[in-house]
Amino acid sequence: MKENQGSDITPVHWKERLHEIIFEADTKAGKRFDIFIFWAIIISVVVVMLESVDHIRQEHGKLLFVVEWIFTIIFTLEYIARILTVNRPLKYVFSFFGIVDLLSILPAFIGLYHTQSASLRIIRILRLMRIFRVLKLFAFSKQARALSNALASSWQKITVFLMSVLLIVVILGTIMYIIETPESGFTSIPRSIYWAIVTLTTVGYGDITPVSALGQTVASLVMILGYAIIAVPTGIVSAEVIRGSEIKRTNTQACKSCSREGHADDAKFCRFCGEML
Amino acid sequence: MKENQGSDITPVHWKERLHEIIFEADTKAGKRFDIFIFWAIIISVVVVMLESVDHIRQEHGKLLFVVEWIFTIIFTLEYIARILTVNRPLKYVFSFFGIVDLLSILPAFIGLYHTQSASLRIIRILRLMRIFRVLKLFAFSKQARALSNALASSWQKITVFLMSVLLIVVILGTIMYIIETPESGFTSIPRSIYWAIVTLTTVGYGDITPVSALGQTVASLVMILGYAIIAVPTGIVSAEVIRGSEIKRTNTQACKSCSREGHADDAKFCRFCGEML
Amino acid sequence: MKENQGSDITPVHWKERLHEIIFEADTKAGKRFDIFIFWAIIISVVVVMLESVDHIRQEHGKLLFVVEWIFTIIFTLEYIARILTVNRPLKYVFSFFGIVDLLSILPAFIGLYHTQSASLRIIRILRLMRIFRVLKLFAFSKQARALSNALASSWQKITVFLMSVLLIVVILGTIMYIIETPESGFTSIPRSIYWAIVTLTTVGYGDITPVSALGQTVASLVMILGYAIIAVPTGIVSAEVIRGSEIKRTNTQACKSCSREGHADDAKFCRFCGEML
Amino acid sequence: MKENQGSDITPVHWKERLHEIIFEADTKAGKRFDIFIFWAIIISVVVVMLESVDHIRQEHGKLLFVVEWIFTIIFTLEYIARILTVNRPLKYVFSFFGIVDLLSILPAFIGLYHTQSASLRIIRILRLMRIFRVLKLFAFSKQARALSNALASSWQKITVFLMSVLLIVVILGTIMYIIETPESGFTSIPRSIYWAIVTLTTVGYGDITPVSALGQTVASLVMILGYAIIAVPTGIVSAEVIRGSEIKRTNTQACKSCSREGHADDAKFCRFCGEML
Repeated sequence: MKENQGSDITPVHWKERLHEIIFEADTKAGKRFDIFIFWAIIISVVVVMLESVDHIRQEHGKLLFVVEWIFTIIFTLEYIARILTVNRPLKYVFSFFGIVDLLSILPAFIGLYHTQSASLRIIRILRLMRIFRVLKLFAFSKQARALSNALASSWQKITVFLMSVLLIVVILGTIMYIIETPESGFTSIPRSIYWAIVTLTTVGYGDITPVSALGQTVASLVMILGYAIIAVPTGIVSAEVIRGSEIKRTNTQACKSCSREGHADDAKFCRFCGEML
Repeated sequence: MKENQGSDITPVHWKERLHEIIFEADTKAGKRFDIFIFWAIIISVVVVMLESVDHIRQEHGKLLFVVEWIFTIIFTLEYIARILTVNRPLKYVFSFFGIVDLLSILPAFIGLYHTQSASLRIIRILRLMRIFRVLKLFAFSKQARALSNALASSWQKITVFLMSVLLIVVILGTIMYIIETPESGFTSIPRSIYWAIVTLTTVGYGDITPVSALGQTVASLVMILGYAIIAVPTGIVSAEVIRGSEIKRTNTQACKSCSREGHADDAKFCRFCGEML
Repeated sequence: MKENQGSDITPVHWKERLHEIIFEADTKAGKRFDIFIFWAIIISVVVVMLESVDHIRQEHGKLLFVVEWIFTIIFTLEYIARILTVNRPLKYVFSFFGIVDLLSILPAFIGLYHTQSASLRIIRILRLMRIFRVLKLFAFSKQARALSNALASSWQKITVFLMSVLLIVVILGTIMYIIETPESGFTSIPRSIYWAIVTLTTVGYGDITPVSALGQTVASLVMILGYAIIAVPTGIVSAEVIRGSEIKRTNTQACKSCSREGHADDAKFCRFCGEML
Repeated sequence: MKENQGSDITPVHWKERLHEIIFEADTKAGKRFDIFIFWAIIISVVVVMLESVDHIRQEHGKLLFVVEWIFTIIFTLEYIARILTVNRPLKYVFSFFGIVDLLSILPAFIGLYHTQSASLRIIRILRLMRIFRVLKLFAFSKQARALSNALASSWQKITVFLMSVLLIVVILGTIMYIIETPESGFTSIPRSIYWAIVTLTTVGYGDITPVSALGQTVASLVMILGYAIIAVPTGIVSAEVIRGSEIKRTNTQACKSCSREGHADDAKFCRFCGEML
């Protein structure tokens, strides 16, 4: 399961080749490396998950321990290789992914000295964040950009919407706190606000439910309100996605004079410089 | 935490300056004042919330009491300042925000004489309403207007939709009241209607659930119905948001040469005849 | 609360005038009659609801009984008036609304002889159906038509969607019946299908929940699936509403030659007869 | 309930005629056969469902057994007929529908020898899959294709979305596992992830709910997040459905006189120059 990367290359260029393999995904070796790291991340995250299940830890604790250390060593080697091959090591170490890479391996080493650091070991789940770097490899990135563009351009509207939801939720929670008795679960305003969020978002756990007739009437209004306003973010994002796809659909023709794009399909003249298209 | 606003200005113009600071948000002092009030509202609302939590009130009751009074005094000074600086004080006092401002401070003073007025003190949460006045300050107002425009123009359609939902819910609730036994929670028609709303809006608390085979069949139909008709308000709002953004996008400018419209906002030349716009 | 309709009119035309009042909503008297019937329906439905609540029936049983009989007499008089004034009484009696009108008053009279006919008395809630006739009066009818048009034109697509949902739900329910033990509530395939519907529609009562690890994994997949496919009916209805509003927006200009409408905004010639617009 | 198909035809062409009846839906006999098989599938699936209900099996076990065998014989005859009439029998046997057809009848025969094969008998529910073959018959296929087109073209975007949801869910589940105590149900990371999925998809069973103040705060954020991101797949599919219906609507016909496109489907004359199309 361990690869001896670069054991057969001349010492002169090994740094460049290693850099190419680790950081680029264009060469065959780089692609293979990315796929290998991708599965290493997935498996090691699954190991962290399984370790948290009591009966699995008791039965297969040793196996999980061994697998965990294999991946820790792989990730440590990768971390060292990244530091060695990068031009500015310090910049990498303190970059977002540099810190994530360190947090992925550190807990295992600390665990050697402090055996009771259970919650610390969970930090290893941050390895999952590393998957974003590998995902660049895959073809989905274009779709992901289209999606995040749609979200980004509707960000302000969604913020306004969420702020309104928060205001509604605080007022509704307070009303229910006054109406309902503490026996039915509405023991404080924060708890009542928690109930209002659970209801308005149509999650509806049922851990706190109104019991009185008035409380159930107000709750009904909250639900119908939530049902109606869920339409708002959907409408916003729909509009953005549609607009995004419309822009994408429009002409890819570039003006010969000013080289700018974004012309309508029926345009005969460039709308920026007046040149005939 | 308390500001002595306007202690260093000449008595001649202090009224106008104070009015500018309190009511406008264009000057630097006005902006600062708005931000200060914004946070004062947020913190005082959090204090009201925390006060409703039993164990926090018992442990930090005195601290909350002091903080509460600090904010009550701030809001009282603000209220007096608003009455003094406004042209028609009575109109302000009986305006929506005037009443909200009064309700924000009154409960604290009444509490001095009637110590058992717990539910009265909760009225202070209405301070949250005051945040709408301060929000004018922020850049989101344009987005908020776009959203509320979309909602306003689809208001009639949403009302028709909600009325249909109410009719469906009354009929479904009555059917379930006949089908299910009172033991499973369907003790009366209003309660069954409450169940129908909980189910149709996909909240699904689970405090009342059908037990019989027939009841579960009808409930399944209700759920699938709710699943299908949730599409209606979403469709309405989506259509409005899209239309709103389309109207905003289309330029009403007509070409002087060929008189045709439909140019993009950044177009400098007519896309049909090449004439400068 | 009782009106002596038409007691001051000559016997010659009383039939026509009564017909106008009852069936039309154009005259002042007709409008008033519709509003009166509207509120009579609402109040009598609320009475039926309240009667189903145990403690209200025990405390205010006599009041409810009296109010109920007043409305029954009003509706009986209305029913007789409708039969008398309509041209073809038999056609009315066996029409949809004729049967609903009869079912609205019959249970009360039957209740005189059979005092234990509780479930029969609930039929009176069908009075609610009569509200649709009165609703013609209100301005919302245009909006309601736009909505029902959107639903009608997407009806086929929604049927296909619901059939697919039913197929998915039967297969998922069966899978869960095999995976989960009867102890966790999955006692039979129909019950498991009920669970699948509760989950897929995101209602989530929690009366039946998977307990085993495998069951929870499958349930998670069902939820994410439901989360993804809820987008389908929304998308369909959104598209219909948008298309509907687009058609409405387009030119209201009618061709002078062939009088047909529906021309695009930039059309210079009628697309049906070629006449210049 | 059993049809003697083809008992009155000459032995020369019976193979061709049978093939036509079984595989085609154009002739009257073929249509009748498809409808017969459609209802045979529906009823036999209902029988399988009812058999899983304890008290129905105990009361009507014998009836279900007889009905089941009638359908098994019908499906066996159909299976044999299909093998006989098809040109390449082996290709059919190992095709998707060939295997489904075999799995629909096999369990009943195996049940003759192994009486305890309860879970095996459930495989018969796969008969439901056969309904897809029959569905070709109905008029809905066009709508179904439009829907599946919209889903297919947004497939990549939905995959990206679901992958993001999975990432969010793993991270949120881990956070809740650290925050909440095992007593409230968060016993392991996989279980916490299950909770995160239940919450994010707004299903909200309530079998695992946060109890601590911090846990409820995080849960509230998860719910509002889920409320906001449910808009994304809806937006994607809406955009696709709208685009699909737009493409269908626009006519690709160009005017012979002015060569411009964009005419409505029912246009007889060019809307730009009035030339007949």
